[in-house]
Amino acid sequence: MEKKEDNQQEEEQVVNPWEVSGKDGGKIDYDKLIDKFGCQKLDQSFIDRVERLTSRPPHVFLRRGVFFAHRDFNEILDAYERGDKFYLYTGRGPSSEALHLGHLVPFMFTKYLQDAFKVPLVIQLTDDEKCMWKNLSVEESQRLARENAKDIIACGFDISRTFIFSDFDYVGGAFYKNMVKVAKCVTYNKAVGIFGFTGEDHIGKVSFPPVQAAPSFPSSFPHLFSGKDDLLCLIPCAIDQDPYFRMTRDVAPRIGYHKPALIEASFFPALQGETGKMSASDPNSAIYVTDSAKDINYKVNKHAYTGGQESMEKHRQYGANLEVDIPIKYLSFFLEDDAELEHIKKDYGAGRMLTGEVKKRLIEVLTELVERHRTARAAVTDETVDAFMAVRPLPNMFD
Amino acid sequence: MEKKEDNQQEEEQVVNPWEVSGKDGGKIDYDKLIDKFGCQKLDQSFIDRVERLTSRPPHVFLRRGVFFAHRDFNEILDAYERGDKFYLYTGRGPSSEALHLGHLVPFMFTKYLQDAFKVPLVIQLTDDEKCMWKNLSVEESQRLARENAKDIIACGFDISRTFIFSDFDYVGGAFYKNMVKVAKCVTYNKAVGIFGFTGEDHIGKVSFPPVQAAPSFPSSFPHLFSGKDDLLCLIPCAIDQDPYFRMTRDVAPRIGYHKPALIEASFFPALQGETGKMSASDPNSAIYVTDSAKDINYKVNKHAYTGGQESMEKHRQYGANLEVDIPIKYLSFFLEDDAELEHIKKDYGAGRMLTGEVKKRLIEVLTELVERHRTARAAVTDETVDAFMAVRPLPNMFD
Repeated sequence: MEKKEDNQQEEEQVVNPWEVSGKDGGKIDYDKLIDKFGCQKLDQSFIDRVERLTSRPPHVFLRRGVFFAHRDFNEILDAYERGDKFYLYTGRGPSSEALHLGHLVPFMFTKYLQDAFKVPLVIQLTDDEKCMWKNLSVEESQRLARENAKDIIACGFDISRTFIFSDFDYVGGAFYKNMVKVAKCVTYNKAVGIFGFTGEDHIGKVSFPPVQAAPSFPSSFPHLFSGKDDLLCLIPCAIDQDPYFRMTRDVAPRIGYHKPALIEASFFPALQGETGKMSASDPNSAIYVTDSAKDINYKVNKHAYTGGQESMEKHRQYGANLEVDIPIKYLSFFLEDDAELEHIKKDYGAGRMLTGEVKKRLIEVLTELVERHRTARAAVTDETVDAFMAVRPLPNMFD
Repeated sequence: MEKKEDNQQEEEQVVNPWEVSGKDGGKIDYDKLIDKFGCQKLDQSFIDRVERLTSRPPHVFLRRGVFFAHRDFNEILDAYERGDKFYLYTGRGPSSEALHLGHLVPFMFTKYLQDAFKVPLVIQLTDDEKCMWKNLSVEESQRLARENAKDIIACGFDISRTFIFSDFDYVGGAFYKNMVKVAKCVTYNKAVGIFGFTGEDHIGKVSFPPVQAAPSFPSSFPHLFSGKDDLLCLIPCAIDQDPYFRMTRDVAPRIGYHKPALIEASFFPALQGETGKMSASDPNSAIYVTDSAKDINYKVNKHAYTGGQESMEKHRQYGANLEVDIPIKYLSFFLEDDAELEHIKKDYGAGRMLTGEVKKRLIEVLTELVERHRTARAAVTDETVDAFMAVRPLPNMFD
């Protein structure tokens, strides 16, 4: 009986900050996720409005539905249209040395938002979280946070508008006060309902959600937003982080704060197929920003799951199944030229283009992307990291 | 059935940081508490050893058994005898504006320890705890913390050896890292076993024990104890705080730290009788440091429970029951002259001295004590508080 229930549970789709798996091990059903989480679908009218308000083409991730859901994004745009600014908040749990392309997605998009709206940005490195969840030492978590900060900075953030902080360095003062205010409003039972903690989880895990909630409130950053307690906050993140911010939005009005708005991304698929996020334990499941051209060539050719047919004859006859094809998915993220992407999809889907040709183009795109990132990262010195992480005012951040 | 179980529970002795009540509403059984908590009795050999090591008479609270239990106090004395120093850590939850005499007991004793051993002292004001438990605002908790700091400073602490901090101001950095290290080692189930949390308690409460644990470790105070990670810690406190430090001592070796030692006090009895701690909700249950001579006179005469007999004839015949007599208990805390106290106990117990006479002497002793405290407190300015609470090195603190 117990076993049967276990099996039934395993069949259901699970998406939370620590686990992402589709029903029966299949693809994530994002429509169902929107329903379950209670967020809104980001439809074309938003994309058009962003284009109009920012006078620049919407980011690939926006026009191709990578960022597909939101909470109160309309209120951010309303405020912006009235001439009010907002600030961006995103983050990373520094659990590994090298980032893969999926890790870069929210940062690439956040950089676009920062540039397009000209707004300040806070980036939280949850070294405390990873110290607790991955059982890393404090020192190792902080080392990884700084290493990851270099990759994040390499995405091109504007230092005059960006504050990066490690929890171990920054928690305290106004930030800690907001943690306590949030914690007072969340019962243990409620936290269990949202995060699924068990009695055998340590109390550090139970204590953590307020740490991720606090940056949603401008008063957590007195050196940036002093006297701007009404400033709205927009959080670009992958949708697995939604539980933290559902909790935060539930608490916010009870402690006199605005609810943060969210714009949420789907998951970047593994090379082996679109059944969830990539796995850190299998290096062949992802392209890392540290991969060489040779690595990329090998991984795409050897491990990318494709929708091509088993023989050339069949392929010419039926064409590729684009729905499951990873090279097409990856190109949809990173090939910016809409016309070329459409052309590839049309020809590949019709069998006129072969899997090898699509893979070749993907390898070019990824190699260029990774090479560009590597060059940018090499230019990020320890002094640059210190400068981004200095607790300082950001003058003219709203100009 | 359920009701019966409830009643059975109510009959048991309960001592934890939030509730102190004897079995069947009676007196606390301290021997049983020592057994249950697993601490040690502080016997005469300790008192003699302290006297010998410090070359001064042991404090009244020591020689009269107010501080009656310990954990590893012998190790502190061993270290001191070897020429190694230690540091003292005590604290207060600032939930009310005015302190009563029971609140002063640990601080008066801590001042004696500081003077006798010439060691540094950290005093934690858990404004975050009171903000969470008493549902005070952050601002009100911090205001109370500063007000309470004035009363604490008035006990005569040496500013060159004393650091007072508010959690809201000080949590962060090395202190926060230690909080995380502790939290990683305590499961929710374990915390429930120690502190009795329920699912309806908010997660702020669950997060708090590591905050009270952290000052037990010298690395939480880099501005004081940098490079002195091996420094031993001695915590003078009332025994209701033992659960926090049982947890701390359990965790310490797992994170590479020394266990803090403890020296633990019994509770200062209420005017109405020795059935637990005094009640903040009943001003007549305690003498406050803000009480006037008239208040003290009224409270002692009107509310102090005595062991005197109901008529003068009976009193002359049987004498007072000293075991339940509050004036005698209070004199045992605050009348320093051993000979006079013995004389009063002998005559009162034999019926030669009347209750009114004992009360009169107590009123004199308390009025002088409270008057002395009031004068000392009046001299504590906001600048003095700032000076004690400044994050600063304490030069020559071990001299």
